[in-house]
Amino acid sequence: MTEQTSTALEAALASLDGLGPLDATAMGQAATHLDTLTKPPGSLGRLEDLVVTLAGITGTSAPPVRVKAIVVAAADHGVSRHGVSAYPAEVTAQMVANFVTGGAAICVLADRVGAAVTVVDVGVATPIPAVPAGPRGARLIASPVRAGTADMTTGMAMTRDEAVRAIEVGLAMAAEQVATGVEVLAIGEMGIGNTTAASAIVAVLTGVPVELVVGRGTGLDDAGVARKTGIVRGALARHALDPTDPLGVLAAVGGLEIGCLVGVILGAAAARVPVVLDGFITGAAALVATSLAPCVAPRMLAAHRSIEPGHAIVLDRLGLQPLLELDLRLGEGSGAALALGLLDAAVAIRDEMATFASAGIAGPA
Amino acid sequence: MTEQTSTALEAALASLDGLGPLDATAMGQAATHLDTLTKPPGSLGRLEDLVVTLAGITGTSAPPVRVKAIVVAAADHGVSRHGVSAYPAEVTAQMVANFVTGGAAICVLADRVGAAVTVVDVGVATPIPAVPAGPRGARLIASPVRAGTADMTTGMAMTRDEAVRAIEVGLAMAAEQVATGVEVLAIGEMGIGNTTAASAIVAVLTGVPVELVVGRGTGLDDAGVARKTGIVRGALARHALDPTDPLGVLAAVGGLEIGCLVGVILGAAAARVPVVLDGFITGAAALVATSLAPCVAPRMLAAHRSIEPGHAIVLDRLGLQPLLELDLRLGEGSGAALALGLLDAAVAIRDEMATFASAGIAGPA
Repeated sequence: MTEQTSTALEAALASLDGLGPLDATAMGQAATHLDTLTKPPGSLGRLEDLVVTLAGITGTSAPPVRVKAIVVAAADHGVSRHGVSAYPAEVTAQMVANFVTGGAAICVLADRVGAAVTVVDVGVATPIPAVPAGPRGARLIASPVRAGTADMTTGMAMTRDEAVRAIEVGLAMAAEQVATGVEVLAIGEMGIGNTTAASAIVAVLTGVPVELVVGRGTGLDDAGVARKTGIVRGALARHALDPTDPLGVLAAVGGLEIGCLVGVILGAAAARVPVVLDGFITGAAALVATSLAPCVAPRMLAAHRSIEPGHAIVLDRLGLQPLLELDLRLGEGSGAALALGLLDAAVAIRDEMATFASAGIAGPA
Repeated sequence: MTEQTSTALEAALASLDGLGPLDATAMGQAATHLDTLTKPPGSLGRLEDLVVTLAGITGTSAPPVRVKAIVVAAADHGVSRHGVSAYPAEVTAQMVANFVTGGAAICVLADRVGAAVTVVDVGVATPIPAVPAGPRGARLIASPVRAGTADMTTGMAMTRDEAVRAIEVGLAMAAEQVATGVEVLAIGEMGIGNTTAASAIVAVLTGVPVELVVGRGTGLDDAGVARKTGIVRGALARHALDPTDPLGVLAAVGGLEIGCLVGVILGAAAARVPVVLDGFITGAAALVATSLAPCVAPRMLAAHRSIEPGHAIVLDRLGLQPLLELDLRLGEGSGAALALGLLDAAVAIRDEMATFASAGIAGPA
């Protein structure tokens, strides 16, 4: 792929190389079991698909998904100086503090599904306000690679080495989560300006024109969207990126939190732990991860499709069908947390329903 | 509407007459509150819409939805003798027993969201097996109007008086649920053959051709769908129904459980309690209810859109956008139970998030 992969990243990619396709035997066992339950075969639709997919990813016919975690990667973006977001850059640090106190949407939604939230500071540029940890608050891990990216319009957002280090932070996070028994890992992000970085990545890796990828982010008006589109176009013209070099793309126009999430995805997939994506930015990370290791794509679950126009493009390219379409555009892992509730429901169906035989119910006439 | 409404139904319709539109003041208060929370305005999409709609229905800016209940109406259909279902008619009674023991999908899904399930036997034709109540089992209420409908292809499915009595059973159920403090009421159904009855109702009330409404139900093959379409066409040709007479339509080609659900909808709406619809059959009941009292339409929430083709037609006519699209086709209230989880999430966002002011976070630049 590139001359400059690290030992940790090389090891993860090598491990993924040996992973092969989803486990067809486990999937078959899961599907057979579902058809014994007191419902017409297939009548619970996507919930049944989820049960089968979880079996395929984990290699077990009925894997538990009780231990849930959400990793939220946070970092700043040099490109935010160009007014590509409706919010000032300090909001990244302020929102990280809000995760710690437990006041953010992701804290509320994660709490409902019993998922532990860890926020990883991979490069927040301004000081994170010191706040007391709340009862629902996230654990904060400081693993800064640099204090935010540089402005992609005037140079590389980060060096290739920094991109690799951001991925390594994510690999380490995934390893830690897996080691503590996490059975399903959702991802989210926080970074003012990161829909701009994600748009640039997606445009390069998919070849879709920038103007079809760029959206309103946190709430730009039409003039803001036009400015953002121009910024991304300018950056891509400057860098002349190679779509077959995902690390180069990540380094030139990406984000540190996006790099971190690439690592989380690769690490979780290698450990056969299902990864639940959130919105557009996590989707951009998933595209980079899939470019590095194509076998990770079917090991991810798409929680939802946001109203950011590039997200549908990403999901189509990943071959993933979203579970929810609720016009979300918050990020943080909020949609992923909602989807964890559907996973719980699917697994409850699998584990708790009666069978036709046990309930004495007639099958099809 | 008709000469033959009952005192109870007349009272409910009169009460609905005075209900007026959703409460704009409460909706405005809910929307204003949402915009103080630490997220870009509107970024939680449909969850925010839900919060506002709940305020409008209840007339309170932040109504609780802790006390949840699901009413599942069950009855048999004379038309099932024509092979319109993949399952034999005895399965209705067997599944009611499965609700009581707690082995059915609705029991599992309701348990997850803390919703109490009540099954109302409005006309199950075969004996319900005596089974021990399970820990997750539904309460069973016997309120039979008659032992299943008659065959709609050879006569009225029930008399107009029986249709009214089925609605009254539902009105009584809604009144009981509201009296015990239920804050949100979901509905579901069980009745082998009831997608045939629902298809007939929907075709008449919407004017959409039968072949666009009829689907596979619990799992018919193409020949089965063709037979079912012919059955519905024949019944409608025989009865020559008036689409402005919903009680006449319900009596001629409807179902006792559908009538019961009409009553539950009318009763809950009159009490300003939000009603969560499930799939196609509850949608047919909603169409009848809306024909009787148009003001109930915005007081219902569409949990999901099933893959039954008539369901999209129903939701479009009701002006309701489904929360979920998970290719469900089970009924029982299963999709409604899943949607109750989203309601909980929406209300948690409303009640538990920090505000920009409390968290010290900057607003838009």
